[in-house]
Amino acid sequence: MPQHFLSGTFIRMSAEIAPAASRKGSDASITVDPDSSSRAPQVNPTRLWERLVQLGEVGAYNDERTKLRGVRRLALTDDEVRGRNLVMGWMREQGLEVSVDPIGNVYARREGTDQSLAPVMMGSHIDSVGTAGRFDGCLGVLGGLEILATLDDHKIATKRPMVVAFFTDEEGVRFGTDMLGSATAVGRLPLADALNLRDRDGVSVKDELDRHNQSGDAAWLYKQPPYAYLECHIEQGPVLLTENYPLGVVTGVQGISWWRIKLGGAAAHAGCTPMASRKDAGLALSLMRTRLHQLTAETPGLLCNFGLLSTTPGLTNVVPDTASGTIDLRHPKEDVLREAELRAQKIIEETLVETGCELLDLTQTARTAPVEFHADVVNAVEREITALQIPTRRLVSGAGHDAQELASIIPSGMVFVRGQNDGVSHSPREYSTQEDCANGVQVMCRVVCGLAGI
Amino acid sequence: MPQHFLSGTFIRMSAEIAPAASRKGSDASITVDPDSSSRAPQVNPTRLWERLVQLGEVGAYNDERTKLRGVRRLALTDDEVRGRNLVMGWMREQGLEVSVDPIGNVYARREGTDQSLAPVMMGSHIDSVGTAGRFDGCLGVLGGLEILATLDDHKIATKRPMVVAFFTDEEGVRFGTDMLGSATAVGRLPLADALNLRDRDGVSVKDELDRHNQSGDAAWLYKQPPYAYLECHIEQGPVLLTENYPLGVVTGVQGISWWRIKLGGAAAHAGCTPMASRKDAGLALSLMRTRLHQLTAETPGLLCNFGLLSTTPGLTNVVPDTASGTIDLRHPKEDVLREAELRAQKIIEETLVETGCELLDLTQTARTAPVEFHADVVNAVEREITALQIPTRRLVSGAGHDAQELASIIPSGMVFVRGQNDGVSHSPREYSTQEDCANGVQVMCRVVCGLAGI
Repeated sequence: MPQHFLSGTFIRMSAEIAPAASRKGSDASITVDPDSSSRAPQVNPTRLWERLVQLGEVGAYNDERTKLRGVRRLALTDDEVRGRNLVMGWMREQGLEVSVDPIGNVYARREGTDQSLAPVMMGSHIDSVGTAGRFDGCLGVLGGLEILATLDDHKIATKRPMVVAFFTDEEGVRFGTDMLGSATAVGRLPLADALNLRDRDGVSVKDELDRHNQSGDAAWLYKQPPYAYLECHIEQGPVLLTENYPLGVVTGVQGISWWRIKLGGAAAHAGCTPMASRKDAGLALSLMRTRLHQLTAETPGLLCNFGLLSTTPGLTNVVPDTASGTIDLRHPKEDVLREAELRAQKIIEETLVETGCELLDLTQTARTAPVEFHADVVNAVEREITALQIPTRRLVSGAGHDAQELASIIPSGMVFVRGQNDGVSHSPREYSTQEDCANGVQVMCRVVCGLAGI
Repeated sequence: MPQHFLSGTFIRMSAEIAPAASRKGSDASITVDPDSSSRAPQVNPTRLWERLVQLGEVGAYNDERTKLRGVRRLALTDDEVRGRNLVMGWMREQGLEVSVDPIGNVYARREGTDQSLAPVMMGSHIDSVGTAGRFDGCLGVLGGLEILATLDDHKIATKRPMVVAFFTDEEGVRFGTDMLGSATAVGRLPLADALNLRDRDGVSVKDELDRHNQSGDAAWLYKQPPYAYLECHIEQGPVLLTENYPLGVVTGVQGISWWRIKLGGAAAHAGCTPMASRKDAGLALSLMRTRLHQLTAETPGLLCNFGLLSTTPGLTNVVPDTASGTIDLRHPKEDVLREAELRAQKIIEETLVETGCELLDLTQTARTAPVEFHADVVNAVEREITALQIPTRRLVSGAGHDAQELASIIPSGMVFVRGQNDGVSHSPREYSTQEDCANGVQVMCRVVCGLAGI
């Protein structure tokens, strides 16, 4: 529910912030059998790596800025569909049963010894942003396939069926809504709304699903829920790298509150207008920005970014008459995030009064509540990393992931793999070592074997 | 002397700031005869106003934004030359001797009874910015002509000759250097440099002077200095309006220090990067902006503007990797302005260290020293305003004026006329009342009569 305020000189803002959709994770009881985990087979690091490299060539480009080979595989473009076909080919080669749901999510199933049981699911996505690396998403999907291939290699049957999924348009870059496929599969996003989303050229999700023949009739996950869900993903941040942890235990996903703000001042001659007579929209925005930074210092775990700052008319000797910005607030706890939103509003109000500026726009452009992963899954991930004698720590994901959608209907969790190059992601510089990737997938293998039973 | 700094992670900035050109006003001794002032005739408010309106139609346009009639008469364009011809026509109709110097400044001379004496000069400019009103500059030129016409009406001879001048490209909008004509006439700007300045289309000042046949061989002012100079101008600020003074006594012109700044941070995911790991160029610029605002609170009379604030890549969830801005510092005292520049550099340094950002660019793009007008002229202006029983105050001009160039060679001063509409200028909303304009010109008439002797 976006909010929009228009004011004369100054309008008192509503203290009402759009309530976040309920995103409480499943609290269903599950069993992760330690014996099964300890008997999990060793995945093949080379096969995993070769597939990452091979998939990374689909939609690859030479990045001017970094002089590196990047990946551009936006959801449901020709390049991404070539990637889908490559991965679905691998799925079929492995003898998996491939199905597709109406939003284009792809599921590859390996039967268990007891077909009446709900499957254990692994997954992620293979779409990418416009300037991507090879790991974001793909590691989780190809890691899942590697685990199923390893079970085949060792002729190991699992009690529960196992499914590897890749979800449509997790990045949200093309159609504007991230976690599009998984949000639809868990019932949060109505199918009709998802299909009607359009890219900048007016092409809809439905147009592209039809053109590429990428929709099917697989059951929605919320109608036939898996037993549990696990996702292995590159961290996309510097925490593990900085603190020398190859792998991380993800306890949840931060809540996100995005705002667009525009302030109105009064253009004036910068030489002839006394300071006290000015209504400087740029100063007002700068004050808000620094005061919200101070708020992060006072609120442990609170993240704040103003990605955009801009002024008009942008001339040296003219006091800015408008200033525009974006605000990105995140915290793992809903009550803290909500309190931060209220304090941010108060800071905005007070700064407007102080500077004599007016609020031309304050719109909440995104809001998700924090997600806490299922304690049993989190504990199992931590236990299996430790069993491999790999140093680790718990951390909250700053980015959104398909796992947070799955978490709303079934016990879910994630394992993070350390990134190199300052942990950068959404860049051709995104990189993780073969060893770290293999270890992350090995942990996933041990947990899903514990969940599926071997 | 522009300065340019390039740094790796952080470079200590030079404390050396480009020294302002020496702009000490003339301290020549002059006489302003109070008896002559008190016998000065009454100017004709209607004739003055009609000429302001008539000249305001040359280059007029309908302004979309304000729905008002604006003026666009950029220096040496066809429209401005039509304005020149109109004003030179009036000069010749009044029987004045019109001459033009090599940079296109126009001088209209009315002989005195003692031709051996240096003339008293009045003047300003008739070029305008792209979105102007009718008063900026024109009031001083047409006011001067009105005074000479009034002397004719009353058949009053002055002892000294009197000259009304308009100077080429005071605004500096087209060729990038303000006070172009007057700065050349007083010898600060070499003629060759002035002629070689080019507009955005590559057309030079010389090209346009030649095309319009607007250069002549009148002597440079620094070679044949007038006795004194007086300029009547609309305030271009809100001080007189706010404080209910129809006229203001201008004591000088502020010094100006302009800087262009660009900071380098590190793009990072706004959800995955801990606050302590960020190098946020936008935050750094916001901190500098608010700290320089604090500096104005601690430094009486100091003005500071950041007209431009902008960040890249400008995305909600990406920490800004660069931030660009402009800094405009002004103060009437050179020592205070210089101290403010040093403190600004220190603030920039400290903020770079604090935020981990680097300085990609810090270039001084303009620097003028403050100008103090001649005490005798300032006192005469104040005395004659008071003699008319008009409330007034002394103030420093925030904007640049031709008078500051003249002040470097001869005793000079200005009278300010109150603007309406918040005192706005460089806008079709620029406005002053017929009464205030006439009073400003009447004060100028009394002062120049005191200087010229009647």
